[in-house]
Amino acid sequence: MATRFDIIGIGNAIVDVVARIDEAFLSRHVMRKGSMTLIDAEQAERLYASMPAGEESSGGSAANTCAAAAALGARVAYLGKVADDQLGRVFRHDITAAGVHFPSAPTREGAPTARCLILVTPDGQRTMHTYLGASVAFAERDVDPALIADAAVLYLEGYLFDPPAAQAAFRAAAAAARATGRRVALSLSDPFCVERHRDAFRALVRGGVDILCANEAEVTSLYQVNSFEEAVEAARAEVGLAALTQSEAGSLVVRGTETVRVPAAPARVLDTTGAGDAYAAGLLAGLTSGRDIRDCGRLGALAAAEVIGHYGARPQADLRRLAADAGF
Amino acid sequence: MATRFDIIGIGNAIVDVVARIDEAFLSRHVMRKGSMTLIDAEQAERLYASMPAGEESSGGSAANTCAAAAALGARVAYLGKVADDQLGRVFRHDITAAGVHFPSAPTREGAPTARCLILVTPDGQRTMHTYLGASVAFAERDVDPALIADAAVLYLEGYLFDPPAAQAAFRAAAAAARATGRRVALSLSDPFCVERHRDAFRALVRGGVDILCANEAEVTSLYQVNSFEEAVEAARAEVGLAALTQSEAGSLVVRGTETVRVPAAPARVLDTTGAGDAYAAGLLAGLTSGRDIRDCGRLGALAAAEVIGHYGARPQADLRRLAADAGF
Repeated sequence: MATRFDIIGIGNAIVDVVARIDEAFLSRHVMRKGSMTLIDAEQAERLYASMPAGEESSGGSAANTCAAAAALGARVAYLGKVADDQLGRVFRHDITAAGVHFPSAPTREGAPTARCLILVTPDGQRTMHTYLGASVAFAERDVDPALIADAAVLYLEGYLFDPPAAQAAFRAAAAAARATGRRVALSLSDPFCVERHRDAFRALVRGGVDILCANEAEVTSLYQVNSFEEAVEAARAEVGLAALTQSEAGSLVVRGTETVRVPAAPARVLDTTGAGDAYAAGLLAGLTSGRDIRDCGRLGALAAAEVIGHYGARPQADLRRLAADAGF
Repeated sequence: MATRFDIIGIGNAIVDVVARIDEAFLSRHVMRKGSMTLIDAEQAERLYASMPAGEESSGGSAANTCAAAAALGARVAYLGKVADDQLGRVFRHDITAAGVHFPSAPTREGAPTARCLILVTPDGQRTMHTYLGASVAFAERDVDPALIADAAVLYLEGYLFDPPAAQAAFRAAAAAARATGRRVALSLSDPFCVERHRDAFRALVRGGVDILCANEAEVTSLYQVNSFEEAVEAARAEVGLAALTQSEAGSLVVRGTETVRVPAAPARVLDTTGAGDAYAAGLLAGLTSGRDIRDCGRLGALAAAEVIGHYGARPQADLRRLAADAGF
């Protein structure tokens, strides 16, 4: 049955604050480089005060994927919670300007729009601290089953397991998708997020995830195995399609007995924030437009390469033109 | 007498929203490329809604100059008005993180923090639309004469002539500086700003501006002459020092009978927003640290080249290191 949307994403609706720091800043603050740590409002104030000047732009893992997939021509919707404040309006403007349908009403009281304080070191690695703010208000009532049924793929970010009420929303959305024969895609988001919610993730994956997106650290953590190869086989056995990334070593797309290795696209690394999100966008835009899995992986690599070439998690160049130039 | 600060800047405290657009966007909206246009809240809403996704960062002409001068090692203070809202806190954070003393209290009611919607075309030119918001609340009461007396140079942006109450503040600050033997520097900001306030600018310049910063279009508009050469001589006759920029053709620094031509520093042009502000920063940081006028111009060119090499009006690289690498 034809659907109105190719992809509907659900995630924490977040505005990013990106600042460039040196390695010493991370040591001084005892931070785990490359990780995402949850912080409360007070910690967010303290960390922000110690940070250099930054730039603000819309972020959120699934929202980044939705914006990039729309830029590649997919028809996309997104659900997530912002407050009725300046940063919430920035988020709404940007995802709407990207061509993504965003029907979620803002909260009228409570915490301000979520923020992710992103510290980028000279090697292009990002270390993130997220204040969930208004995004914790996202709950089952915010999931419209009719809208889920109207999208070929439901895309869920793993980070959504962090706000307590969102887990119920997450499961309700997945159930609504499955009930109407739609595919469910899951991104594992972060190895520490996997650690925090491993049992729930394992149950969800076994219970009906069709498309799994993860990097090496996340998928080995999910299956508690020591090698990427073991994790690949575990994923192959459980999900219809797994797209497993290995940074500059490229990615593997695995479907049944098929295995396709896709090289990373050449890029000058400035800021890796959003690389995995952009990869998922290319993959899903490819799958929903009927491309073979090698081309889906190549579209993912192409989108990721664009995003890591500048500061900020969303594409700045015209992804459709980049794809056309690459023969798509 | 020794002062606590080298420079105190006064200007419209603004958060920039930078978006990349194509030339067709400007034609469609009948915009004057390269100009700054004042807009009201409703126009700001409409324009923002029609813009692509953007990035937010602290701006404001004199504030940019202050941030860059501090990055070059100058001791800097800044006065300007933000609201007590998210973008106001972003502005306060960023200028404070840049090492600039920012004692101005936020407004508690009224308009939100000022925003400048900046549209950057592929040639690196920026077309700006400013909603003055809370910055119009800046008035004479916000000028502390003791603080003005404690800075070697008072730096005023021409844009400050646009909010009506600020003109009185502007004159009071200049009078306070002159009364205590401090130097007064003025940036003309924009040729259309000069047109709007030409008589007031002319009176101010004649009445005691020691350092004039302007580009070719601004200074020829100020003196209503047809050639850059005539404007240079008019400025030479009226101000102690004039630093007059000509984009990629470099700048002229003129002091009494001295004339120094300074080439532009090599740069890949991505976004010219803030180029003039950064030039003024290098010039003033040089002057207040006792450098000769050629080196002051060279520091200006170096700072401008850094700023036009990326999106956003404030320096992203370490300007002190760049200056050191250039032999300063």
